[in-house]
Amino acid sequence: MIRFNCDYNEGAHPRILERLVETNFEQTAGYGDDPHCDRARDLIRAACSTPDADVYLLVGGTQTNLTVISAALRPHQGALSAVSGHINVHESGAVEATGHKVLALPSDNGKITAQQVEDAWRAHFEDETQIHMVQPKLVYISHPTEVGTLYTKTELEAIYKVCKERDLYLFIDGARMGYGLTAPGTDLTLKDIAHLCDVFYIGGTKVGALFGEALVILNDELKKDFPYFVKQKGGLLAKGRLLGIQFETLFEDGLYYELGRHANKAAAIIREACEKKGLSFLCPSPTNQQFPILPNEMVEAFRDKYAFADMGKVDEHHRAVRFCTSWCTKLEDAQTLADDILNF
Amino acid sequence: MIRFNCDYNEGAHPRILERLVETNFEQTAGYGDDPHCDRARDLIRAACSTPDADVYLLVGGTQTNLTVISAALRPHQGALSAVSGHINVHESGAVEATGHKVLALPSDNGKITAQQVEDAWRAHFEDETQIHMVQPKLVYISHPTEVGTLYTKTELEAIYKVCKERDLYLFIDGARMGYGLTAPGTDLTLKDIAHLCDVFYIGGTKVGALFGEALVILNDELKKDFPYFVKQKGGLLAKGRLLGIQFETLFEDGLYYELGRHANKAAAIIREACEKKGLSFLCPSPTNQQFPILPNEMVEAFRDKYAFADMGKVDEHHRAVRFCTSWCTKLEDAQTLADDILNF
Amino acid sequence: MIRFNCDYNEGAHPRILERLVETNFEQTAGYGDDPHCDRARDLIRAACSTPDADVYLLVGGTQTNLTVISAALRPHQGALSAVSGHINVHESGAVEATGHKVLALPSDNGKITAQQVEDAWRAHFEDETQIHMVQPKLVYISHPTEVGTLYTKTELEAIYKVCKERDLYLFIDGARMGYGLTAPGTDLTLKDIAHLCDVFYIGGTKVGALFGEALVILNDELKKDFPYFVKQKGGLLAKGRLLGIQFETLFEDGLYYELGRHANKAAAIIREACEKKGLSFLCPSPTNQQFPILPNEMVEAFRDKYAFADMGKVDEHHRAVRFCTSWCTKLEDAQTLADDILNF
Amino acid sequence: MIRFNCDYNEGAHPRILERLVETNFEQTAGYGDDPHCDRARDLIRAACSTPDADVYLLVGGTQTNLTVISAALRPHQGALSAVSGHINVHESGAVEATGHKVLALPSDNGKITAQQVEDAWRAHFEDETQIHMVQPKLVYISHPTEVGTLYTKTELEAIYKVCKERDLYLFIDGARMGYGLTAPGTDLTLKDIAHLCDVFYIGGTKVGALFGEALVILNDELKKDFPYFVKQKGGLLAKGRLLGIQFETLFEDGLYYELGRHANKAAAIIREACEKKGLSFLCPSPTNQQFPILPNEMVEAFRDKYAFADMGKVDEHHRAVRFCTSWCTKLEDAQTLADDILNF
Repeated sequence: MIRFNCDYNEGAHPRILERLVETNFEQTAGYGDDPHCDRARDLIRAACSTPDADVYLLVGGTQTNLTVISAALRPHQGALSAVSGHINVHESGAVEATGHKVLALPSDNGKITAQQVEDAWRAHFEDETQIHMVQPKLVYISHPTEVGTLYTKTELEAIYKVCKERDLYLFIDGARMGYGLTAPGTDLTLKDIAHLCDVFYIGGTKVGALFGEALVILNDELKKDFPYFVKQKGGLLAKGRLLGIQFETLFEDGLYYELGRHANKAAAIIREACEKKGLSFLCPSPTNQQFPILPNEMVEAFRDKYAFADMGKVDEHHRAVRFCTSWCTKLEDAQTLADDILNF
Repeated sequence: MIRFNCDYNEGAHPRILERLVETNFEQTAGYGDDPHCDRARDLIRAACSTPDADVYLLVGGTQTNLTVISAALRPHQGALSAVSGHINVHESGAVEATGHKVLALPSDNGKITAQQVEDAWRAHFEDETQIHMVQPKLVYISHPTEVGTLYTKTELEAIYKVCKERDLYLFIDGARMGYGLTAPGTDLTLKDIAHLCDVFYIGGTKVGALFGEALVILNDELKKDFPYFVKQKGGLLAKGRLLGIQFETLFEDGLYYELGRHANKAAAIIREACEKKGLSFLCPSPTNQQFPILPNEMVEAFRDKYAFADMGKVDEHHRAVRFCTSWCTKLEDAQTLADDILNF
Repeated sequence: MIRFNCDYNEGAHPRILERLVETNFEQTAGYGDDPHCDRARDLIRAACSTPDADVYLLVGGTQTNLTVISAALRPHQGALSAVSGHINVHESGAVEATGHKVLALPSDNGKITAQQVEDAWRAHFEDETQIHMVQPKLVYISHPTEVGTLYTKTELEAIYKVCKERDLYLFIDGARMGYGLTAPGTDLTLKDIAHLCDVFYIGGTKVGALFGEALVILNDELKKDFPYFVKQKGGLLAKGRLLGIQFETLFEDGLYYELGRHANKAAAIIREACEKKGLSFLCPSPTNQQFPILPNEMVEAFRDKYAFADMGKVDEHHRAVRFCTSWCTKLEDAQTLADDILNF
Repeated sequence: MIRFNCDYNEGAHPRILERLVETNFEQTAGYGDDPHCDRARDLIRAACSTPDADVYLLVGGTQTNLTVISAALRPHQGALSAVSGHINVHESGAVEATGHKVLALPSDNGKITAQQVEDAWRAHFEDETQIHMVQPKLVYISHPTEVGTLYTKTELEAIYKVCKERDLYLFIDGARMGYGLTAPGTDLTLKDIAHLCDVFYIGGTKVGALFGEALVILNDELKKDFPYFVKQKGGLLAKGRLLGIQFETLFEDGLYYELGRHANKAAAIIREACEKKGLSFLCPSPTNQQFPILPNEMVEAFRDKYAFADMGKVDEHHRAVRFCTSWCTKLEDAQTLADDILNF
């Protein structure tokens, strides 16, 4: 069985494990107050060109999302999100459990537009019964999105502009950031992103770490007392240095980007085979997740040899699937799948 | 600087790291649905003699506490806890953030009694204005407690008996369980504990793991839908096997107990020096945390050489401190401190 | 200015005020433990033919909705509702503030179908990643709906059947119940409703009371400890008898139905004029709210003489509006509006 | 049976009912946007000499407490309160249900001191592990307290000074404010109070209204978006004018003070009899609640003739009780009780 079912099937890049072994008997303070976390935070601030950013290293994505959103909002406020946004679909109501409504906006490619944000703002603030409705205050987007798509620089600038004008926070979920930053054709760098939002994170869990998300807080309003929230929501790792060591390794010499590029390369092999075969896609994705629409027979034939996600029926004769590559996917495995697609 | 400030200064026992390295490129399903987690759960069920228990492997203690308590209680119910209980003092209001009051009971040794639980129950249910007050429904105790003390089997039986009679859940926070199970003089085994409560956990973070707490749910009422809560509260580790591998290693051949005994041995060296020196203690502790009351001069003199926690002023001339050993403390370091105490 | 803007423009039916005056100096226990509340509860149980129902008298609708839903659900569960449902749109996130997601179902007439409920259940429970999503557990419907429409007996039976099969609670918001029960053509009686759901309420605020909603809990699972929730959510009126006296008056001799019929009669005068004029409607409504689509000129012309709600632009030349009658609307005022429509 | 069990046994002062009857058929906008609410707010601002205050008219005390506290605090913050404070004891965990810990301070007379507030602030902010603990941000006091005692002007000034210095909000629960303002010997006027806190309320429910609390927000930080909170927590009365009419009546010509004085006069009759009889008190109270300590025989003898609250056993031979008078207590009833005490 060759696994294309997700991007967290294996452990971590070997250099991360080496570093954990090397540093194992160092004695350091807990909770992230250690030299490894300090260095990781510095490396990330440097990579972002945001010397004043507050950086927190957290264990996982849902935890990061719920911590940021509950820290940012007052009780009557909600988060605008694409209907397909992770917080709206796949976090078991984590945001609502902290008391906030996710205000879903329609989307057929995982993205939302500046215009949608502006319209949602107007729909609320121009309604005289506004106090009977949840006030939009934060815009949540994913980059890459849950369906592998990417914002362009122009799109992100437009969204951030509306957010600034309308006093909304812009929060970018970067669980798969590494795959987005290194996608062919993207014009958004890490520096761009860090200057076009209020808070975002750089995902480690899905890009070569054992676990970990590096949260970068840019807006001063969101910085105050943030450590309390991390602790209260159960996200303060006692041996915080484990996160520091991982992000040091990922960011000291470009490993993070290298891993991203690798996964995209593997994905491209699969995408190109699909294209050559004349298959269409749910969404055009330049990143590590590919969502081709396959004839039912192909889906059935592939089930024994490959692990992949079934995205559901498209029509009587076709289903959409997700092939997901990662930092750890072997290119020959991608090629095997590509060949099987072409030769089907 | 020799560190006695906490029990999570270092990484993990080397065998755990070895195992992580060995298994790194295995491909497994995420979220704990993998053979390592399965085996860890089986080992823990076997160690507890509770074949029907549900076992969950979670990352940290605060997360575990808030997940269990919010899953167990309805909105009008609260958790009885010693005033010194971790959930009442040191979790930034994590339990309250899920909507529940911690009902604090007085305690001067970190423990509560069956009688206190019974009295709290009566005070609520025999009051005709009960619906104006938070209903006690869960009893939270720590074993060892936050001040290193241990329940006896008789005490725990009495508490559990009241809980059963009064339809209260008994939840044991075992963040330092390994040090409790192997303390000299304790009559409570892991099997005993697993049969004298509704839910408890076996702490890994403070006893040799990189991180991790093994939650054991015994009462069927608490089992239903528990995985949703783990996800919702941000505690579902994508690469769940990292937890499985660690608990496999700790429980396959007694390593967990070995680590516990080691820390207690180091603590005994320090305790005995204090006793020989005629010092008194905040609480008598047979476990890895020692709380002697030192002359101010000794406290000052030790500050440069040792890291330890200051527990505050006891009288004009004395302060209480905490010396904390761990699975990783060198016995010679404990001896050095013991000598310094004796020779002061 | 003649007001058709809502159904709570005036105080209460005079008989209610008389009763409040008569009973003013009676001394009774607080919090609903008084003979007036007892009698009101008995009258309601009798009207529903549900001798075992628990009846609570609460002050308002949002309060009732949030109290019921938060009492009924565990933290990982959500409430299915039409996208237009009051809890989804007009309660400022009250349900989310108690930690629960409102799971919105599409609807163009304010109603949802049994099939939608069944599909939502399947979409959740047949998905292997279900624990990553909010579990549907309660179905919220309004009768009449927010747009004046009514369920038929067949429709309600079908929904309740799915709820029973799928272990979902069915909760009916009856803020305007009086107008629904007395609408021409409806085949749903109060008794029917009380036997086709788990919990519902009979609105007083909009049907002749100063304030008040009579909540009827039928399912034993929802009865336990309910008074705690009323208190905790701030809904326990100290002088509870004020609610008892109002519902006694409404239910002792059919006043509630009389008031409902009156409003519907006034609404029919307006509806028939619109129909005669050839106007269409957002939804066909047999109850006290009418949503005709008017030419822009008519809307403008009416603004000075009538108060009504603007429901928004339908096309370049038309807007939808809401004319709302009540227990207190004068039939001659309705006729004046009808004449103005016909003569425009 | 003569009732001294609480101060909400009857309806409302007759003038309030008259006004409700007179205005019953006025048509007004809902939700407090009506001339009666406007006038009530103006009267209250004038009575407080706080022209810039925001005034909200809410239905009940628990609702007001939970709405204010949840609006004022961020998720990691808590409310300091006397251990006997209403929010800590008798609101079924309403504050915790909004996510916030009540940080209880010891008190044996219902009051807390400026020093306690300062100490609590220091205990938190001078602890280096502060982020592991709930941050105090709001101070909740009651005036009169739950045991009838009153703050002096000097005491309140000192508390408010600490609050200002330490950036804490001061919130005064004035559920029985009318009885405090008119107590013999008090040096705190309504104007004083309105200038010595950030937010407070003037209780109507217990002082002659059918229901209602007038919340006065003085600190601009607390004003923003407050109406959303009122709606979200279920406290927005549809026919808001019912509250306006009541507070107009209470504040247009001093009725509120008249009712307060009356109750205190009745209470003084009882208090003086107890003193003359040589009985001691739980707390010395100049307001409408008296807490004498009675011989068990007296308690038993009075049970058939009077309704009063039993505050529990004081020693083998005595119990404390509460006799509560109100705006509606007949002076001759108070005298009857006084005589029975004296003649026992």
